[in-house]
Formats: sequence, C-alpha cells, structure tokens
Amino acid sequence: MALEGLARVDIERFLDRAQEYREGRVGGRHLLGRVVANVFYEASTRTRSSFEVAAASLGAHVLNWSLSGSSATKGETLVDTAKNIAALGVSVIVVRHQHSGAANLVANSVNVSVINAGDGQHEHPSQGLLDAFTLRRRWGSLDGRTVAIVGDVLHSRVARSNLHCLRALGATLVFCGPPTLLPTHLEAPGITVTTDLDRALDGADAVMMLRVQRERQAEALFPSPGEYHRRWGLTSARAAKLKADAVVLHPGPVNRGLELASEVADGNRSLILEQVENGVAVRKAILEAVS
Amino acid sequence: MALEGLARVDIERFLDRAQEYREGRVGGRHLLGRVVANVFYEASTRTRSSFEVAAASLGAHVLNWSLSGSSATKGETLVDTAKNIAALGVSVIVVRHQHSGAANLVANSVNVSVINAGDGQHEHPSQGLLDAFTLRRRWGSLDGRTVAIVGDVLHSRVARSNLHCLRALGATLVFCGPPTLLPTHLEAPGITVTTDLDRALDGADAVMMLRVQRERQAEALFPSPGEYHRRWGLTSARAAKLKADAVVLHPGPVNRGLELASEVADGNRSLILEQVENGVAVRKAILEAVS
Amino acid sequence: MALEGLARVDIERFLDRAQEYREGRVGGRHLLGRVVANVFYEASTRTRSSFEVAAASLGAHVLNWSLSGSSATKGETLVDTAKNIAALGVSVIVVRHQHSGAANLVANSVNVSVINAGDGQHEHPSQGLLDAFTLRRRWGSLDGRTVAIVGDVLHSRVARSNLHCLRALGATLVFCGPPTLLPTHLEAPGITVTTDLDRALDGADAVMMLRVQRERQAEALFPSPGEYHRRWGLTSARAAKLKADAVVLHPGPVNRGLELASEVADGNRSLILEQVENGVAVRKAILEAVS
Repeated sequence: MALEGLARVDIERFLDRAQEYREGRVGGRHLLGRVVANVFYEASTRTRSSFEVAAASLGAHVLNWSLSGSSATKGETLVDTAKNIAALGVSVIVVRHQHSGAANLVANSVNVSVINAGDGQHEHPSQGLLDAFTLRRRWGSLDGRTVAIVGDVLHSRVARSNLHCLRALGATLVFCGPPTLLPTHLEAPGITVTTDLDRALDGADAVMMLRVQRERQAEALFPSPGEYHRRWGLTSARAAKLKADAVVLHPGPVNRGLELASEVADGNRSLILEQVENGVAVRKAILEAVS
Repeated sequence: MALEGLARVDIERFLDRAQEYREGRVGGRHLLGRVVANVFYEASTRTRSSFEVAAASLGAHVLNWSLSGSSATKGETLVDTAKNIAALGVSVIVVRHQHSGAANLVANSVNVSVINAGDGQHEHPSQGLLDAFTLRRRWGSLDGRTVAIVGDVLHSRVARSNLHCLRALGATLVFCGPPTLLPTHLEAPGITVTTDLDRALDGADAVMMLRVQRERQAEALFPSPGEYHRRWGLTSARAAKLKADAVVLHPGPVNRGLELASEVADGNRSLILEQVENGVAVRKAILEAVS
Repeated sequence: MALEGLARVDIERFLDRAQEYREGRVGGRHLLGRVVANVFYEASTRTRSSFEVAAASLGAHVLNWSLSGSSATKGETLVDTAKNIAALGVSVIVVRHQHSGAANLVANSVNVSVINAGDGQHEHPSQGLLDAFTLRRRWGSLDGRTVAIVGDVLHSRVARSNLHCLRALGATLVFCGPPTLLPTHLEAPGITVTTDLDRALDGADAVMMLRVQRERQAEALFPSPGEYHRRWGLTSARAAKLKADAVVLHPGPVNRGLELASEVADGNRSLILEQVENGVAVRKAILEAVS
C-alpha cells in the first residue's frame, strides 16, 4: 500500500474506520487464527510494536521474523525470504526495509497482503495516515490548514508520505530545512519550500518536526547540533510565536534539544503521544482493510 | 511495586492468591485482549519468560519490547520510551533495568501499571515474593524460622527484596559473605551479619545462596573461584551438617562448583526448580493484582 | 523424537494426520492454554517460524527462548536450562542445537515433550517427515521410487533423517557428493553411493539438493563455488535430462547458482515452496502427537 495516488475519498473512508477503532466503537477479533508477519530489515521497535499491538488486538498471531542470524545473513534474497514467509501460511506481511521499493518488490512476489512499514527514502504510509488522522481528529478537517514540515525533507519517507496524504485532504504544505536537505522540485500549487524556519512557521496550524538522522551529520550534510538547533530547531522561543492553537507533531523518537526543545515536546501544543495512540488505531484499520 | 513497607497482611493475602494459581484452583483468562509489555534493559531470559508465561496464561498478549536496535540505542530516555509504550495501549509494563529506581521512575511517568522486574541493586520484588512463597509452601509459616542468605549481599537486589519480605513474614535472617561484599548496616533486631559461613549455617532452616556475579571478580571484590567456593560456597560437606530438614534456594542460574556444589543443587534439599515453578504462579498473582 | 527405528506404519499414520491438517480437514485449537517453547541454540528463523506458526495455529502460546544474553551465556548447562524451561510449565520444548544428541539429552532431563528441530549432524526429523510428506503427496506412494540426495551428505542431518524416512516408505536412495563429503558406509540394499552426479540423476524420480554450508569451504572440504556448481550442482542442462515428471527438493535457504541453478529453483519441477507449506502441516501433526 502506497499513499501516492490514493484518492481523498479513499483516505477519508479509511480514517473514518480508524476513528471507530480509536473510540472503541468496533472491537472484534476478526483476525483470530490468522498470522501477521512482522519483517523488519531495519530496526524500529516502535513501528514494529505498533503493528504487533494492532494485529494482536484483532486476534492475530504475530510472527516476528527475526533478521539476525536468519536466512538474510545466509545470503537469501528478499524475494526468496518473502516467498518462504508467505508459504508458511501467513495472511499479511508487514515489511520495513532500507531500500526504496522493497515493499513493492515483496508485494509483486507473493500472493498475500503486504503492508509497507517504511521503505528506504520512499514512503511510510502508515505514518502518513496516522499523522493525517491525528490532525483531522484535532481539527475535524484539514481543509484550509497549513502544515509546516521541518528538517531533512530530502531523505525523509515520513515527509514524502505526508506530502501525498495531507495534500489530498486539503492542507497547504510548507517544507523547510537546511539547503542541502531540501528538494526544490517539491514546489507546486499548495506547496512552499523555504530554508527560513521563521517564515515557514508564520501562519502554520501544525508543525511537523522530522527526526535528525545523526548519521547524516557524519556525511557533513548537517551543520553542528548547536547550529542545527538554532536555525532549524523548534525552540521554546519559536514555539511561543506560533498561532495560539497551533500543534506540534514528531514521528519519534525525539532528539530532545536538537530538532525539538524539551519544553515544546512536553508542552501542551505537543501531539506526539497522541500520534502513538492513534497509530495503533490506524494500523488496525490498515490490517483490516488488507486481510 | 516494591516490597519495602508492604505489611505482613498484604503479603500474606498476596501469597494466598498465588497459592490458588499454583494449585490450579483458579484459571480464567481475565487478561484476554490486554497487552503486557516486557521491557528488559538487562538480559534475563528466565525472568522475562516467567512473566511471559504468566501473562499469556492469563490470556494477555505479551509484547517483548526489544532493546537491541531500538530507540534506546537512538538516545531516547527511559521515560520517553515508557510513555511511548504506554501510548500503544498496553495495560502493564514489566521493567528490568540496570539502574536502581528505574521502575519507580517509569511508574511515575505513565498511567499504566508498572511491575519492577529488578532495578539495579535496589529490589527484585517478584523474586522476593516467590522465595517467600516457596518457603511458606514448604513450612506453612515462616514464623520462628531462620534463613541464611549467603554471597554478594552488598550488590544483591535479591537479598534486599528478601530482607523485607521474609522478615515481614516472621523469619530471622542471617546474612553472610566476604567482608568486602557484606553491608554492616544491616544489623538489626532479627538480623545477624557474619563473614563466617559455618556460623551462618548453624541452625538455619533454609539457605539462600546468591549468584556470584563474575564481573565483580574483575573488580577484585571477590577472591579466586577456588577460594570463594572453600570459604563461602555451599559444599557437600557443609550441606551434610545442615539441620535434617533444611532446604536450599538459589535464584538461578547456578554457578555449579562456585557458590553451590553440584550435588547440593541437584540434591533433595534443593528447592531451586520449585522456585521456578512457583515463580509463574506468583507472577500471575502480581499481574492480576495490578491490572 | 527421532526417525531412526520408526516403523513404516507409524510414519504413514503420522503423514495421514498431517494430510488432514494440510487440507484443512481438521482445525481446532487443542493446544489453547498450553505453552510451546522454541529453544534454538542455532539460528534458524525458518524452522523456528514454521514451528511457531504450527503451534500458534493450534492455539498454543509460543515462548521464543532467546539465547543471546540468556543464561546460556552465563555458563548454564543445556540440561539446567531445559529443566528451568520445563519448570515454567511449558508443554513442549522444541530444541535446535549444534551438538548431535542434544535433543535426546534434553528429553532425558525433563518430564515434558521434546521435539528435535535439528541436532548437530545427527537428525532433523521434522524435515525428513516433511520431505517424505511432500513426495507422498505428489506420488501417492514412495514405493519403487528413486530419490537422489546430493551434496554434503557427510555433515547433513537432513540427509540422515531422509535416509531413514524415505527408505522406510519404500524408496530407493542414491547419495551423491564430493568424495570428501560422502560417507561410504551408507552402502546397503536399496542405497547407492556415487560421486558422479550424472549417474546419480539417471532414473531419479526426485532430486533433493542439500544446502552447501559455506563454512565447510573454509575447511577446504569443498572445491571452489564454480567447480562445485559444475560438478555437483543441479544446472539447467542437468535438470533438462531428468525424467519428464521428476521433481526437485531443497531444504532452503537455496544458494542460487551454487548447488542449484536459479531457473531450476523457480522452475516447474521445483517443490521447494511446497515443502515450506507442508512443513507447517507436518509440524502441527508432530505437536499434536507429542502433547
């Protein structure tokens, strides 16, 4: 499942269903007797666990396919591994992989449902949906709202998934980050790109701070942590200048004091833990939809 | 949950409930649809598995929050991790951590139940309770009984948890170990402290041998293994001089031939495997009590 | 459970039951409330997962006893670990170990059922049974059929388990591999041993390619990969000369281009994924039989 190309009506229907899960209006164990395989080539305990809790709540058995010491290290290809997992009789494969397109490759190789839990710098659809869900739950509708997405936009699958999803739901987007990490080709109707954070925050209804991948600093694409915080971090001073009801999101885990000041992460604008809670409901809806 | 300060009547009521689980007089899947998260910052397959079997037997889904490659290595604080786990909708967090006070810190940060599965050199409440349970099951009551606790008392959370629990249930305690590993401030009514093992064993109804942490030997706090075994090990010769019905406990895993002779570990005084069996019943009672 | 010595009638009855699982004619959650422990001293995600899916489908909770950071690294013996796992109240221990005889050792130490999931170079009974099952499902009966088993026969527990199982079911066997890896003592009525692959394949109804353990090449027991493929690999050219309805098996994961050409692995002779599917049904029957 990718978000690019998904129509607004499909996204809305989907979020409506997640809303029912979120409010406990539906329960049911309709995956009882089914197996959901979590296949994470990149470590991500929080995303893996979110899918695990969602699947288990629906009654499924969750098979955590471990990569360390597995056939991956024995030289087996991703496609062979996926075919083997499918042959075990699982109903759904949730796959996280460091290469863009990996989830598509798997989906094209097997006859079971495949959920993309993040592929390289391409997409992270469940994150995009839970972010949209979180904002819609807060606002009722994203129409006419402005969302600033700040940080390493270039390498971020979170940014990419939100681009499609939030825009389809009617939001205006502002992308902001260091010039080395900001793709200029994003410019389009309803999308602004700027390296000036103060300009990006001006008028924003929501600010989505991207996580700094510290390994990029080794690549010299980032300035020093102090410089980064000063220029592209959401400091308390900047947060104070936001619109009165503006909210702050972050996909986690937060680098406190780097992209986000601790007081802002823990402040009353922050929807960060709400995102985590919503993530389980959204993933229940995803699992239900594909199985 | 800490044992210090727990009144005798509370401990007794608790052990009564564990007794019902132990004898299969209660079953029930009253945690069905609930999630119990095992969050172990220190590896301890046996304690983790004991909680897992207990929780699964009560119908819960067990989320093993993996630390390797998780957000812990991404620099996330314990409190942030705990808040995220809670936000997933889990009912109980079972936490093991190398720092004293970690479980309290987590409990103060989240609105879900937190069970301390061992925090640094502070407490290991479920171990203290299962030891008390094992002795009470054997004797009916601990009143008037003497329990010798032998080894690295200074660094042992097992010793500390047993101190509170066994004493509250009416036992007299004798702590024994090398002088570098024996806190003298333990001296109190009903508590003796000695470096002389033969004196400690004289009149003991139960001997609890603590596991030698080999890393302490690197710190030069321990004598050589041979010397340790001779002076503070429960050898066959020493075991032969115990009271006829005296029993031997050990929290496991045993260093055979170091703190405990193999023949004693496997002999008819040994309650070591009984402790493991009882541990599951006690943890069922703990999970039931907090959820 | 070992296959050596199992009578044909027992194997047949067993495969009949697996057949019922395979075709969904039986379901049931008769392991509900039971715990199956997967204890893998050797990494084998696919075998572990196959047992996990089988046990979970029967309603059991699956305890994956993790070895990294466990008591194994704290110097505990296999027998002590097994006794501890049994004391947790598990119903079945599935054990994979690098030493021949390990599963027997465990079975003799505990009062719960033990399933051998591969012990050193000795046996891998569930693999032998699923291979037999796969061939019987294809052919109806193995009587009068010839199966060539090709590769590192000397170190292969898969070969050893198939030796007993396929022979008991009436098949004729041909073992083939490099002279350094081919035990000559296998020669017996109904068994041929040869280093000449073309001779081995002549008349074969099934070819079972063994996985090359690359670490053996470091030991200089294997020729170079290119040489190995030419002399003992199932190339497309060789596959083309097989009998029209001959089938190809492999326990996985496949070293494509080494023991098996990619086109053959993916071709219409290949039963490799069928083996994986059948493996779950066979393991359900095994779990049912022992619990």
